[in-house]
Amino acid sequence: MKKILILGAGRSASSLITYLLNNAKQHNFEVTVADTSLDLVKQKTAGHPSARPIALDIADEKLTHDEISKADIVISMLPAFLHPKIAAQCVAMKKHMVTASYVSPEMKKLDADARKAGIILMNEAGLDPGIDHASAMKIIDEIKEEGGKLLSFKSYTGGLVAPESNDNPWGYKFTWNPRNVILAGQGTAKFIENGKYAYVPYHKLFTRIEKMHVEGWGDFEGYANRDSLSYRSIYGIEEIPTLIRGTLRMPAYCEAWNVFVQLGVTDDTYVVEGSEKMTLREFFDSFVPHGKGDLKHKLAEYVHIPVKGKVMDMLEWAGIFENRPIALKNATPAQILQAQLEEKWRLKDGDIDMIVMQHIFEYEKKNKKHTLTSSLVVKGDDAIHTAMAKTVGLPLGILTKLIITDQLKLKGVCIPTIKEIYDPLLNELETMGIKFVEKSS
Amino acid sequence: MKKILILGAGRSASSLITYLLNNAKQHNFEVTVADTSLDLVKQKTAGHPSARPIALDIADEKLTHDEISKADIVISMLPAFLHPKIAAQCVAMKKHMVTASYVSPEMKKLDADARKAGIILMNEAGLDPGIDHASAMKIIDEIKEEGGKLLSFKSYTGGLVAPESNDNPWGYKFTWNPRNVILAGQGTAKFIENGKYAYVPYHKLFTRIEKMHVEGWGDFEGYANRDSLSYRSIYGIEEIPTLIRGTLRMPAYCEAWNVFVQLGVTDDTYVVEGSEKMTLREFFDSFVPHGKGDLKHKLAEYVHIPVKGKVMDMLEWAGIFENRPIALKNATPAQILQAQLEEKWRLKDGDIDMIVMQHIFEYEKKNKKHTLTSSLVVKGDDAIHTAMAKTVGLPLGILTKLIITDQLKLKGVCIPTIKEIYDPLLNELETMGIKFVEKSS
Repeated sequence: MKKILILGAGRSASSLITYLLNNAKQHNFEVTVADTSLDLVKQKTAGHPSARPIALDIADEKLTHDEISKADIVISMLPAFLHPKIAAQCVAMKKHMVTASYVSPEMKKLDADARKAGIILMNEAGLDPGIDHASAMKIIDEIKEEGGKLLSFKSYTGGLVAPESNDNPWGYKFTWNPRNVILAGQGTAKFIENGKYAYVPYHKLFTRIEKMHVEGWGDFEGYANRDSLSYRSIYGIEEIPTLIRGTLRMPAYCEAWNVFVQLGVTDDTYVVEGSEKMTLREFFDSFVPHGKGDLKHKLAEYVHIPVKGKVMDMLEWAGIFENRPIALKNATPAQILQAQLEEKWRLKDGDIDMIVMQHIFEYEKKNKKHTLTSSLVVKGDDAIHTAMAKTVGLPLGILTKLIITDQLKLKGVCIPTIKEIYDPLLNELETMGIKFVEKSS
Repeated sequence: MKKILILGAGRSASSLITYLLNNAKQHNFEVTVADTSLDLVKQKTAGHPSARPIALDIADEKLTHDEISKADIVISMLPAFLHPKIAAQCVAMKKHMVTASYVSPEMKKLDADARKAGIILMNEAGLDPGIDHASAMKIIDEIKEEGGKLLSFKSYTGGLVAPESNDNPWGYKFTWNPRNVILAGQGTAKFIENGKYAYVPYHKLFTRIEKMHVEGWGDFEGYANRDSLSYRSIYGIEEIPTLIRGTLRMPAYCEAWNVFVQLGVTDDTYVVEGSEKMTLREFFDSFVPHGKGDLKHKLAEYVHIPVKGKVMDMLEWAGIFENRPIALKNATPAQILQAQLEEKWRLKDGDIDMIVMQHIFEYEKKNKKHTLTSSLVVKGDDAIHTAMAKTVGLPLGILTKLIITDQLKLKGVCIPTIKEIYDPLLNELETMGIKFVEKSS
């Protein structure tokens, strides 16, 4: 029997658990699902005969150690900063490990010891990072094999709401960690375009958007992610003249979000004095220069938007002019904004989320330029098996299965950028409806 | 004999050393000046009979301890982060201490022990913080004593170049730590205006300037400092409806500096790849959207300035369009900008610096509103006794003299906000030409 330990049974673990339990009988899996909430684990495993639900607090070092020692492979759905600690134990006890998080410097340091121990520490095995790596590298390797020369690679991903559930002017609802959405883009975006470096500070990020069409799904907008430059070495395309990775949103979202950025209300570094006694209107008012005229006109002038129009409608819909009490004590601007948007951008019963990913490659072959577009759209099945849960959980599950059934002969710290990993991963994802559509011109 | 130990003999220590040596005979001072460079110390003490020049590296803990043990009072001109360590030794050995730096949390923690030891830890005893505290509190206390009610307090200070040495379109040269000028304002400025909080993010800071006239000296512009709100409790004016502290610059400076902020070239958080191989023009180009047209037009459009005019002239004068090699390796944008401006904003032989400080109070007395403006302008004597060296060094020297001659009966951590300190301080500064001009209306 192959023993799999899943640490953490939160939202993003649903499709992972279902997948492994569905595969349990055929491959003789025992799937231990551990979470601080035993109720949650029982609910997610639903009495499945191959499931072993347990209560586990990661702070309980003895129990954690015991459970890892019993397993053949550990999937950590814990917050990313906990991964290196779990990984060190996995190395010491010669257990494989899988995560959906970026390889941290601490994780990287375990590579030699993991090789010695003969185990795999598989990271970046979710959607983004994860499916993005696999699908991009498949095409990059193919172009290279055919003697093509890459000129440009742009890749955008968005966790959005499906068109049938899109009923607000932002075209957006929270389908994932709201805090990450509020703080998205802080810092400086770095990419390369036509051989020139580009640095975009946060306060300019949402003005430098790229319009993008996804066939059959309409128009979107993308803003650049923080660090595209590092992907040149990750993907082995050091000489590529254009490389941008970014985040997809519905049209107009970026222009309206930029108002929040310009005002400074996404700042998470200080506390707003007396926030518990303020209304939302007063809060927003304190970010607009004092002076004559009503708040709406002053704000419009300050952030250079028309006082009537789509963007102002979006702001009004978000409730920023309402005299509604904030009630949060010692809150940062970002926390106040998040609390308000959690009201507004909440998924309703029956709402369906949607993942959109699109890669656009330009390359030269035999003195001819080509464009290749590869697009993935995944909708959620329901409120549990959301598109996000599927696209994060299924790659984790598939790679776990490949490792534990000895179909991957790798050792050490890995990510799904190599053919040995991405081929079986993408093939199985396709059978589950997670399929890229390619278009050449 | 009263033994004074000065740690650090850098630029800002010149007037302090001169002042204490000038007072040495009358008060029987021995002034030990310690620096890693014995040459520098010898140069600054110039063979004065009351001076004892020594070489001291603060990393040499034994020698540092010995020297503190021999002194009655220690003046630390070291970087601020070193003050708490020196202060702890002063407390242990019952020696007074004086610094020109803000009271850090670590310094504050020493208050009770300093009181027990019967010594003074005098901080914020320079210009800003220092003279600003003393001069503001004198007026605040007077208004309160006369039954006045404060409505508004605005206070701006600038370290500038004197009009006769002002020969560039920015009206600015580095007269102080260039790095602090490059990074000035990063974070969020917080102040209160007409009873409403105001939060100004960095990318808006240099657009929200206040024009200010200083009688006899012309027009200036001020931008808000990071934290004005904390001064309500420091100055005992918790209920004041308007309180802003800021930095003074010459007109147009802020508008042109804002171009650097908008571009993102004042960022000090990441390294520009291959900076050693770039020219300044290429560096600035990487902060401007790629596209058709020449750099100047693209930049003007991106940051919303006219392609011809005062601001563009200032940018051109700064050399940002020049194909001049940067040659700095692994440099941050802020470091690249600093290196360039250090070339451009260098004080020439004979150049004279100038400190401008202006407080504007509004208050109500017997149902009548009053405005009181208190202004200080100090010019440097020469390249050694600059306005900055005088306005930082003389308060340090005067307060040292007052402490060591038993004219201050305080104990513990102090700053010059109380009458017992500010009255003798301001009186003696006046005799040395550092005199505020008050104007009521």
